[in-house]
Amino acid sequence: MSEAEQRPTAVSEGVIDLLGVLAYGELSAFDRLAEDARSAPTLAGRAALASMAAAEMGHYGLLERHLAERGVPVEQAMAPFVRPIDAFHTSTAPKSWLESLVKAYVGDGLAADFYREVAEWLDPETRELVLTVLADTGHSAFAEREVRAACADRKVRDRLTLWGRRLFGEALTQAQHVVAERDGLAELIISGSGDLAGIAALFKRMQSLHGRRMQALGLG
Amino acid sequence: MSEAEQRPTAVSEGVIDLLGVLAYGELSAFDRLAEDARSAPTLAGRAALASMAAAEMGHYGLLERHLAERGVPVEQAMAPFVRPIDAFHTSTAPKSWLESLVKAYVGDGLAADFYREVAEWLDPETRELVLTVLADTGHSAFAEREVRAACADRKVRDRLTLWGRRLFGEALTQAQHVVAERDGLAELIISGSGDLAGIAALFKRMQSLHGRRMQALGLG
Repeated sequence: MSEAEQRPTAVSEGVIDLLGVLAYGELSAFDRLAEDARSAPTLAGRAALASMAAAEMGHYGLLERHLAERGVPVEQAMAPFVRPIDAFHTSTAPKSWLESLVKAYVGDGLAADFYREVAEWLDPETRELVLTVLADTGHSAFAEREVRAACADRKVRDRLTLWGRRLFGEALTQAQHVVAERDGLAELIISGSGDLAGIAALFKRMQSLHGRRMQALGLG
Repeated sequence: MSEAEQRPTAVSEGVIDLLGVLAYGELSAFDRLAEDARSAPTLAGRAALASMAAAEMGHYGLLERHLAERGVPVEQAMAPFVRPIDAFHTSTAPKSWLESLVKAYVGDGLAADFYREVAEWLDPETRELVLTVLADTGHSAFAEREVRAACADRKVRDRLTLWGRRLFGEALTQAQHVVAERDGLAELIISGSGDLAGIAALFKRMQSLHGRRMQALGLG
């Protein structure tokens, strides 16, 4: 086997963007879960959230290695996405433990839906990487249990339902900003989904999955 | 092999205490590193600290499993040590990024010196576990590099030297409180070190290792 054959294939701008936004998403999720861990009402809850945060960094490490093997420093790939992702988190700062749980659940779910669709348009190796880093870190079952229990109180339920809707709106707004600014990523999505009708269908599927997710939490 | 032979050996009160304080130390270190990650001056520094925090949770998971296999929930083993370890962190809250780095370096180092001595008095299996969770998570080289660079400024160096001495004093104070309250742990240390002279020698070794560690940071 020649040296060229052993080297991983070159990576397109759109894929670098995709892995960069995924990596910064993991780093942000780490941060958010670590902060939530601190406000957990029990020692067991605190350790559970800290372990989930740690799992996010495991995923981050996979993305970092994949990019580094292709000559791209992860910091460079992440840089364009720091501002919009931080803006999303600032505009949706949770005011309680339950809001934190709903945000992590809804946010991770939306991101996973999107990346899972995009993964279908990638080469097999990158697809496998994306699907691996999307693996649930155990947060979902934990959040469903806690939120469902709290929803026995009707007022709490109504408040969290509005919160879930707002999160969906804010996430779409920031996602549109990102795609509008990153040509490579926009091209990946447009060529992958076929045309504008394909993109509309993608968003419709995401909306429907979001609705199902809200129901799983006992909301909506 | 009978069922009794396959079951892990019962675990003494002193060892439960030791693994409990180690586990809560890891959970606290996770917290502290995750918080430091947020204040890191670069994206690379932030990711580096977050990865180290994640490694602490890997160690935590090993301790949790070891205790669970012996019928002890890790939360129960940690409970007596939450107050003194939190008190140590509250009384030594760093006021800058450099103070954070020195604290993590000095604190982890002191803990490692102590546990490494104690490990010698344990059964081989527990000893191996303790030595594994003491493995440096990569923080040391990172801290040495950053602190040494900052010590070019004499004022910074003097301030951090005083900080390092204070940390040593506070750590010993809290450690003495812990041992005074936990009979099992006290017995483990007294029987392990032989007598009071043995304990005095242990503290002397720790003081000397602390001095060497300060020098490695360019302090003292």
